Amino acid sequence: MTGAPRRRVTVLGATGSVGLATVDLLERHASLFAVEAVVANSDAAGLAAVARRLNARRAVVSDASAGPALAAALEGSGVATSAGAEAAVEAAALPVDWTMAAISGAAGLAPTIAAVRQGGAVALATKECLVCAGAAFMREVATAGATLLPVDSEHNALLQALGGQSVDDVERMTLTASGGPFRTWEAERIARARPEDALRHPTWSMGAKITIDSATLMNKGLELIEAHHLFAIDAERLDVVVHPQSVIHGLVTFRDGAVTAGLAAADMRVPIAHALGHPQRLATPAARLDLARIGSLTFEAPDMGRFPALRLAREALAAGGAAATVLNAANEVAVAAFLAREIGFGDIPRLVEDSLEAADRQGLTAAPETIAEAIDLDVEIRSLASGRLPEARLRAH
Amino acid sequence: MTGAPRRRVTVLGATGSVGLATVDLLERHASLFAVEAVVANSDAAGLAAVARRLNARRAVVSDASAGPALAAALEGSGVATSAGAEAAVEAAALPVDWTMAAISGAAGLAPTIAAVRQGGAVALATKECLVCAGAAFMREVATAGATLLPVDSEHNALLQALGGQSVDDVERMTLTASGGPFRTWEAERIARARPEDALRHPTWSMGAKITIDSATLMNKGLELIEAHHLFAIDAERLDVVVHPQSVIHGLVTFRDGAVTAGLAAADMRVPIAHALGHPQRLATPAARLDLARIGSLTFEAPDMGRFPALRLAREALAAGGAAATVLNAANEVAVAAFLAREIGFGDIPRLVEDSLEAADRQGLTAAPETIAEAIDLDVEIRSLASGRLPEARLRAH
Repeated sequence: MTGAPRRRVTVLGATGSVGLATVDLLERHASLFAVEAVVANSDAAGLAAVARRLNARRAVVSDASAGPALAAALEGSGVATSAGAEAAVEAAALPVDWTMAAISGAAGLAPTIAAVRQGGAVALATKECLVCAGAAFMREVATAGATLLPVDSEHNALLQALGGQSVDDVERMTLTASGGPFRTWEAERIARARPEDALRHPTWSMGAKITIDSATLMNKGLELIEAHHLFAIDAERLDVVVHPQSVIHGLVTFRDGAVTAGLAAADMRVPIAHALGHPQRLATPAARLDLARIGSLTFEAPDMGRFPALRLAREALAAGGAAATVLNAANEVAVAAFLAREIGFGDIPRLVEDSLEAADRQGLTAAPETIAEAIDLDVEIRSLASGRLPEARLRAH
Repeated sequence: MTGAPRRRVTVLGATGSVGLATVDLLERHASLFAVEAVVANSDAAGLAAVARRLNARRAVVSDASAGPALAAALEGSGVATSAGAEAAVEAAALPVDWTMAAISGAAGLAPTIAAVRQGGAVALATKECLVCAGAAFMREVATAGATLLPVDSEHNALLQALGGQSVDDVERMTLTASGGPFRTWEAERIARARPEDALRHPTWSMGAKITIDSATLMNKGLELIEAHHLFAIDAERLDVVVHPQSVIHGLVTFRDGAVTAGLAAADMRVPIAHALGHPQRLATPAARLDLARIGSLTFEAPDMGRFPALRLAREALAAGGAAATVLNAANEVAVAAFLAREIGFGDIPRLVEDSLEAADRQGLTAAPETIAEAIDLDVEIRSLASGRLPEARLRAH
């Protein structure tokens, strides 16, 4: 990449784990990139440090109350600062060649869409856009002519394994799942699992929500929904295999029977570097995979009986329409209630299934046409699912 | 591939196992291909059957004495016939879009080069060109603007895993080795192995020569040499890992740490279909890989102490010049002598090493500039190695 003009980049969510890994890579390859903006929620001190490291033109906190601290921390640095949700969206809309979209949760939707709308490459490290508003989001991507580069391990592996080939030639895309902490547990014991049991994830250290999703396998179900939208592949050709070592992250079977797979050691810098260098490659100091040292990779079929969340996600994907949005919103409510010890582990998929059925009865079945409609539906379903919590709580006690 | 004009194809070595697998695929996709010529050595009846199945324009046996039988078998069929080594080369030189080059041994060199010189795509199922005359052969490929598509499992997997990306971005290419029948044997026991021990290959059913090469791991050494030429990658970035299940065939590590791998069930139609469909994909009825059913994939570092042939091949690759040609010719002589029970299994690498040293002392170190020079050197080394056999035989008894 020598000789080329510097690529202009923006990092949304610059102080989180994905953001900091991106910052690390940008710093290592400082001569290749000019950083337009770095955006965080409220960590003014952390964002100021990042802005200085990257010599960014602009730093923005979306929490307006953190604005004065950011301005103070960057006084005299030459880095422009601003604050508030609108300022974050404005920063995301500044024209750049590449954006890291790593603001998680609902707060990430508007800035991510602003980044997509300018039509550059968008490295996607947040699930919400695809799970909650997949069809509408992908229409935005197509209209803008943006390039979406997934950076979570599984979808990045699938993108690499696909290698630019047509999805028409793909017979099957398989995501691997670690199986979570209850992989070998009996159904009875899983139903009684406590938050502290679920929070011991075998491979990755992650946030509480995603760790619970990994224990129910809902995480993998949501990833199937993401893959469906990202690769425009139908539900019938999407599959999951349990692979506790999490070395192979995704596999693509072509219609001639050949399979390509994406593998990597557990270091987020690998998929982020892939997205940042795309279509070339950037050197990273990430640990290299040593199969002879690892010795053995094992695989087993997922058990939909013990892990009904995966079945529910598959059914939602097959049903289409509003089902994925409902599934996701109800799951958020259920996981929060489980973490608050209000319901049992086995109640998580039950509440999701109850909510899907209730939404169906209420005629909430049409796919959201726009992101705004998806957000409205998300709010409605959260309320619906919360309303069904007392019933679930009764069952739990 | 619908709507496109039929691709013209020729099959060299149409009655061997790779040839017949190619014929099977051409028959299944008959509407896509027009078969210009099918060529075999001396199996007139087999070739005539293939020519009729594919509605080929021409059938050629390179063994002149089989000509009358071929002509008789195809009388009235409308298939033109000819016979003799020159006729085989002429058939290979007929302009086509795609050639399967599957005539093994020295007999395959001239027809394969004729196919390369017309500048189409050449599916390569024979080692000789690359191992014995790699640099000269790749110059022919470059001059003609031909596209080389390897169909043996390992190189085809590497081609698929590379996915059109630059070799400059590749940190390492790893070929997998089954480890052969002596993978778990002690060095002493390996040295005393008999032909019948070696001919029990764990995964593939192959010819005797390649099965012995698989037992010494020389096979994998020769594949390293092939990969070096095919992908223009230096010896330092080439590696071998032992993987007894032979499910993953090759892995590419990029400089960001990401790894892509090529996998397939043990069915030659998979890599052949990849080469035949390239850059699209052709459906095949080959068995699909089922990782959950396979359960476990294991890996270990190759042991150069117990398997010195792999060390010798790596050294020859690093030395460059004539070393690979010498290694290959001496190995042919050694394996034939072992199969004839003239030398022991442990004498195979010893004879190869002796021959490499003798060639070095005789100044036979320059890389062959042309295919003809490579053939001359090959003949000379076979004679040299045969002359050193009595010594090896003395050691063996």
